[in-house]
Amino acid sequence: MKLWDKGATIDDKIMNFTVGNDREIDTHIAKYDVQATRAHVIMLEKIGILSAQELDSLLPQLEILEAHTQNPDFFIEPEYEDIHSKIEAELTLILGETGKKVHTARSRNDQVLVALHLYYKDQLQQIRVRTVSLFDTLMKLAEKHQDKLLPGYTHLQVAMPSSFGLWFSAYAELLIDDLTLLNATLQIVDQNPLGSAAGYGSSFPIDRNLTTKEMGFATLKYNVVAAQMSRGKSERTLASTLGSLANTLSRFAMDICLYMSQNFGFISFPEQLTTGSSIMPHKKNPDVFELIRGKCNKIQALSTEMILITNNLPSGYHRDYQLLKENTINAIENIKDILEIFDYSIAQIVVKDIDLTVEKYKYIFTVDSINNLVVEGKSFREAYKTVGGEVQAGTYKPDSGRKHTHLGSIHNPGFAEITEKMRKVSTALDKS
Amino acid sequence: MKLWDKGATIDDKIMNFTVGNDREIDTHIAKYDVQATRAHVIMLEKIGILSAQELDSLLPQLEILEAHTQNPDFFIEPEYEDIHSKIEAELTLILGETGKKVHTARSRNDQVLVALHLYYKDQLQQIRVRTVSLFDTLMKLAEKHQDKLLPGYTHLQVAMPSSFGLWFSAYAELLIDDLTLLNATLQIVDQNPLGSAAGYGSSFPIDRNLTTKEMGFATLKYNVVAAQMSRGKSERTLASTLGSLANTLSRFAMDICLYMSQNFGFISFPEQLTTGSSIMPHKKNPDVFELIRGKCNKIQALSTEMILITNNLPSGYHRDYQLLKENTINAIENIKDILEIFDYSIAQIVVKDIDLTVEKYKYIFTVDSINNLVVEGKSFREAYKTVGGEVQAGTYKPDSGRKHTHLGSIHNPGFAEITEKMRKVSTALDKS
Amino acid sequence: MKLWDKGATIDDKIMNFTVGNDREIDTHIAKYDVQATRAHVIMLEKIGILSAQELDSLLPQLEILEAHTQNPDFFIEPEYEDIHSKIEAELTLILGETGKKVHTARSRNDQVLVALHLYYKDQLQQIRVRTVSLFDTLMKLAEKHQDKLLPGYTHLQVAMPSSFGLWFSAYAELLIDDLTLLNATLQIVDQNPLGSAAGYGSSFPIDRNLTTKEMGFATLKYNVVAAQMSRGKSERTLASTLGSLANTLSRFAMDICLYMSQNFGFISFPEQLTTGSSIMPHKKNPDVFELIRGKCNKIQALSTEMILITNNLPSGYHRDYQLLKENTINAIENIKDILEIFDYSIAQIVVKDIDLTVEKYKYIFTVDSINNLVVEGKSFREAYKTVGGEVQAGTYKPDSGRKHTHLGSIHNPGFAEITEKMRKVSTALDKS
Amino acid sequence: MKLWDKGATIDDKIMNFTVGNDREIDTHIAKYDVQATRAHVIMLEKIGILSAQELDSLLPQLEILEAHTQNPDFFIEPEYEDIHSKIEAELTLILGETGKKVHTARSRNDQVLVALHLYYKDQLQQIRVRTVSLFDTLMKLAEKHQDKLLPGYTHLQVAMPSSFGLWFSAYAELLIDDLTLLNATLQIVDQNPLGSAAGYGSSFPIDRNLTTKEMGFATLKYNVVAAQMSRGKSERTLASTLGSLANTLSRFAMDICLYMSQNFGFISFPEQLTTGSSIMPHKKNPDVFELIRGKCNKIQALSTEMILITNNLPSGYHRDYQLLKENTINAIENIKDILEIFDYSIAQIVVKDIDLTVEKYKYIFTVDSINNLVVEGKSFREAYKTVGGEVQAGTYKPDSGRKHTHLGSIHNPGFAEITEKMRKVSTALDKS
Repeated sequence: MKLWDKGATIDDKIMNFTVGNDREIDTHIAKYDVQATRAHVIMLEKIGILSAQELDSLLPQLEILEAHTQNPDFFIEPEYEDIHSKIEAELTLILGETGKKVHTARSRNDQVLVALHLYYKDQLQQIRVRTVSLFDTLMKLAEKHQDKLLPGYTHLQVAMPSSFGLWFSAYAELLIDDLTLLNATLQIVDQNPLGSAAGYGSSFPIDRNLTTKEMGFATLKYNVVAAQMSRGKSERTLASTLGSLANTLSRFAMDICLYMSQNFGFISFPEQLTTGSSIMPHKKNPDVFELIRGKCNKIQALSTEMILITNNLPSGYHRDYQLLKENTINAIENIKDILEIFDYSIAQIVVKDIDLTVEKYKYIFTVDSINNLVVEGKSFREAYKTVGGEVQAGTYKPDSGRKHTHLGSIHNPGFAEITEKMRKVSTALDKS
Repeated sequence: MKLWDKGATIDDKIMNFTVGNDREIDTHIAKYDVQATRAHVIMLEKIGILSAQELDSLLPQLEILEAHTQNPDFFIEPEYEDIHSKIEAELTLILGETGKKVHTARSRNDQVLVALHLYYKDQLQQIRVRTVSLFDTLMKLAEKHQDKLLPGYTHLQVAMPSSFGLWFSAYAELLIDDLTLLNATLQIVDQNPLGSAAGYGSSFPIDRNLTTKEMGFATLKYNVVAAQMSRGKSERTLASTLGSLANTLSRFAMDICLYMSQNFGFISFPEQLTTGSSIMPHKKNPDVFELIRGKCNKIQALSTEMILITNNLPSGYHRDYQLLKENTINAIENIKDILEIFDYSIAQIVVKDIDLTVEKYKYIFTVDSINNLVVEGKSFREAYKTVGGEVQAGTYKPDSGRKHTHLGSIHNPGFAEITEKMRKVSTALDKS
Repeated sequence: MKLWDKGATIDDKIMNFTVGNDREIDTHIAKYDVQATRAHVIMLEKIGILSAQELDSLLPQLEILEAHTQNPDFFIEPEYEDIHSKIEAELTLILGETGKKVHTARSRNDQVLVALHLYYKDQLQQIRVRTVSLFDTLMKLAEKHQDKLLPGYTHLQVAMPSSFGLWFSAYAELLIDDLTLLNATLQIVDQNPLGSAAGYGSSFPIDRNLTTKEMGFATLKYNVVAAQMSRGKSERTLASTLGSLANTLSRFAMDICLYMSQNFGFISFPEQLTTGSSIMPHKKNPDVFELIRGKCNKIQALSTEMILITNNLPSGYHRDYQLLKENTINAIENIKDILEIFDYSIAQIVVKDIDLTVEKYKYIFTVDSINNLVVEGKSFREAYKTVGGEVQAGTYKPDSGRKHTHLGSIHNPGFAEITEKMRKVSTALDKS
Repeated sequence: MKLWDKGATIDDKIMNFTVGNDREIDTHIAKYDVQATRAHVIMLEKIGILSAQELDSLLPQLEILEAHTQNPDFFIEPEYEDIHSKIEAELTLILGETGKKVHTARSRNDQVLVALHLYYKDQLQQIRVRTVSLFDTLMKLAEKHQDKLLPGYTHLQVAMPSSFGLWFSAYAELLIDDLTLLNATLQIVDQNPLGSAAGYGSSFPIDRNLTTKEMGFATLKYNVVAAQMSRGKSERTLASTLGSLANTLSRFAMDICLYMSQNFGFISFPEQLTTGSSIMPHKKNPDVFELIRGKCNKIQALSTEMILITNNLPSGYHRDYQLLKENTINAIENIKDILEIFDYSIAQIVVKDIDLTVEKYKYIFTVDSINNLVVEGKSFREAYKTVGGEVQAGTYKPDSGRKHTHLGSIHNPGFAEITEKMRKVSTALDKS
């Protein structure tokens, strides 16, 4: 069934090409389409387009349909073009003419738009929760391994002492910035677009404030043209925000893969978290973190795809927008999986004791040696020259290190302050 | 002068290749480097590394240097590797040993990092102001042309009536979402990174809360490793946020170029805003909007560049990060110019009267015709079939249109609500 | 079954996360894995690792398996990790120890690498054929509509006369450049990588020249490290080359959508190739060309994904490379569909007669007017000023147009030359 | 001077915004604009638009101008909009009316288009030469260090033995693929576009075969619309091809930076090729290779920019295309510098002796151990289990390694074959 059937036969090849895999993709937004339909019919009754009896007959059916969409076996039959056709058809089958009326004062663009907004909102909430959970795991690891030293590198050259406490909590603190962007993105999609119709509103006297309240949106995307134009713009923003989170996780995974290499040997994981090789029996490969890295890199590529699909298109709906859904939904499902498996795996990390007295790390305390001279009264530049001269001449004797006491450094890492910052950002939307 | 000179001669070819155009780029952040140095020396005096007299001699010199950086002719001489070397050298020339001490407890990475954070903060504030100014201009145009109808298109096909009021205010409302992202980005860069040193902190007892207060940052990037890792991450976020704003402006520019085409003929601009052709004497080309579109598309490409430079690099500083500055600074300067010229040009737009009764627009009111039948009691699906049949048979008589009265539609566009939403978002950071 | 099973139990969550949808993806390369296995066992027999009897028992089974992979219902059962495990297991089930031997002197990386090379070769051949077919269709349309004038635009402003002959053959000629890139890409993947093993070769005395000949590769990727590194690099090249073709098709589709708009009205398509709207009964939307445009834009985004996955990774295999397959295969399948549907649809285009005497096109012949003055002896600059003055003063009288006779222009479009150029490029690989 | 001046005053703000930095950029193509002008006037004389005397007066002036463009101080004065205006103005200053005639039968688009094609051709030739030179350097290094073993990694885990011979020649062999793409790109730009005028040809009887021959183009872009559309398409292709080369160099640079880390310690460079740190006196940082990596990553980002600027724009010139020049020219200049500095630096590499008997490399010969069992008659799968069992039980005794003798492996690396392949590809265009 096509909502727009106009009697003429559509060419089969064209039909197959245009429908594509919409049905599979739409199972992800089915629940939200039902929720939006529920809000819409409640409003239609308020403005007199549906009678009270019609509404009474629709509501329980919508409840049944919503439950139905949550069934793992839920799928959209080939006779329907998409989820919207299916829901209308099923309501019509049971309720006759009343079923047909649910489309009154809406267009399909409207339905896709509002269902996607509800889906994005819900998913962003879940992603926020998982991000905070990973943050908590990392802070626990930071506290547990706070005093274990780790070589710090610049230019991939041994540079200065760092610590596992700093390493874990650094990624934790970066997650706060990602959450700031998740919050902003949530605010952007938390605006009711329903009423946009085909992008230019409708001549029905619909009550958009009522549907906004029924669906729990914080505000409206008022202008119906702007509402329609949020197709593409929402996906670009979402892709870029998920890309920011993916960037943090991808770089963390790179560190993990490198530190697991025998040439670093800083960490390991229990054997059941690693995978083997078809020809090398000794291999314990960090596939899970390599796949996290790779999948995060795919997510980082998504915003370019979203921009390319929509860029330079004049305003007004284009069918191209239908292609925005697939990889946005994939990215959302992937980032949720990634956050879960990252949290699960990192909690099992084995942190090794690193001997900083070996030859390759011998210059790691040169900055401390310089600072000792500065404390004794030399200018930094002079002290640098003295120690540098010893290094050049091969007479440098490794310092045993100084305490780094300022806020955010090895021996005063500011865990409480970081945790408090996260608390503020993770609850920022509650007050507003 | 190189801050890291260790006596050995560096190969000239290598030197030229590695310095590149750093000096030109650094003129943009010179002022901020001086500001950060000022905060740093105030702190050094508090913790006893500088004497009160030394501080007293430094502060007026820094004031002079800051003024100097604002001189349009300001440049960095070839004998300096970058702005940081130049400032230290000039202070040392005047103040001797005291000048050398300003680098104590800092590294060059530290200096670049904090100067960029201050620069980004300042620039984001300016961009926010220009965005709000463009919003105001668009809302004024929306009000002025509220009742002028415009054909609305879907699939580039004539679809339903729209209006100039909707068109101008749609782009205005989208700018609010861009501002939400600008706010989030401002919050992310509004965290003091100073004290990160080479990315692993320092053994000096520096007071980071004091420098935070002196420079007016809202909070700290506490963890010194996280502070260093914000290189790349800040630029990615900034690029993506400027990309969002650029996306709105680029698409608006596309509409403008299309609507100026003789085949649309909806708008025009005074002749002094258009350019001609070297072979066609009749041309009045919309170059300014084409260049806005193209420049905005370049800005939209930036986040990919930022990601590619940093992606899959292990934690710790890499020299590659030096390359992040150039195009980020270009994008910032460009978006400011674009916002200004857009605001200036759009204010001079000439909106034409469009005759919707001509043949090509004849079906623009079919949805209204359907709604008339619905109001008379038909289901939407039935009414659709009736009007569709008339269209197919060629018997359809154009409707003269209905009033669209719901919130956000042609005759009730919600200008007050949109303006109020902008007010909230543009002042959101004031309260926090 | 996992080829690398080493006895220890792998965590289920990790297993699910790492296998992902590899089984679905691998159905595309199943046939090629069998072909490579066939070449490999023939070689193993030659170097004495397999006996003649073992080879005799393997060859017919491989033939059966290859046929099996072409069955539309072919799938990889959940007990197998991938296609390679499945094939080895099935051979072992039937042939016992002999089946196990097919993996001797190969690694899984080897198998994936060579199967992908064979797959890419085959697909590129198919894509080349379809590209030439579309070229032929376009040249036929160019000839058929050679003399029909079309307004030419610059800056989206009416500029100078063009023709349908030029329009169709322009896109045809651009396809030749795309074919040049397809040829180069085919040459790049036409190098046998088998023997790379895990990326560092093997200690078995394998005969790589023999497998090269058996599989029909033009040459070898000699260096085993280079062979392994072609993972990622091949996909990047392929993505970029398909992106070039997609770019041509996407821009052509944009023209088509624009020219179908009522404001241009230059072309149309039979109703069965267009789709309708759920609320506007008059709509005949060009969804097929919008989806071509959108799908081509997705393909244009692919090379960024390929680069992001592999970029900045040190040499040697990483599991991330497994993620390169999915969207490369999707892009290949999509571009084949797109070429087919484009060819099918464009052949049905309806080209309208355009009246160039209407007001909006009145200046389209100003350059001809200028040229008339030049022919009479004026310098171009003087003639430009004269006609420009008439346009400014409103006294310009439209010229009826001149014959454009130079090679490649309206009345001498060089169809024979273009066709000959295509013939050369499309047969360039035959000679080598 | 503006070629299109039509008398009306152009707004200053608009003028500044639209001219941008065109003058700086145009210095790169100045020489080629003169060359194209030379071919054009020779043709104009042949078709009778210029007299023999006029041609005689023009040719020496053009020779002077071409020499002038090669002066390092050459610049375009602010009174000219671009290089094309400057050249016409200077000719007119000296030759009067004759100077003005050089623009006859051309448009500015034409001039930009053909000058860029000549520039791209010339630059691609230079890039090809430098690529072959780097190939030669790498093959020499491969031969010199052929027998030095290097640990091979998969998943960044120690895997199997590799060698410096393989490592250097792997990157050399990958450069052959990059050259294949450079060849294809050169063929694509080696098509004369002159005669396109504003994108729709001209009504003058120009002889395009003659200008093709005069400028040394291999063929024509026949169709004038296709010629104009190569703007954007050429740049996309070029960006992607330079990106392929950049990809090879970037990954090579990553290996170098990693192998220089104290944790690998496989290679080093003379001190004068490394740079130091402002706070750590022991640092010898590989900045040159980090900047190569970063600059190559920027080049890899370029194709996205090129696509974003042109994507979804209808056919016909748009001013946006002017923005394609800047970063394409930057990328060309950068890749030439990168190739030169890479060649210069890598030739000075110090290759260390790596002790493969240390603990961390102990399993590097397990595959050889397995193969020993296979040679003794076990199936690979059985041998894998035996050795795997020893590794698990801690009883594995390292094998001392086997000879890898097949083509492309450690002890038979196929240098002659690789060199011959390069010879074929580097001379492929000579025959055609």
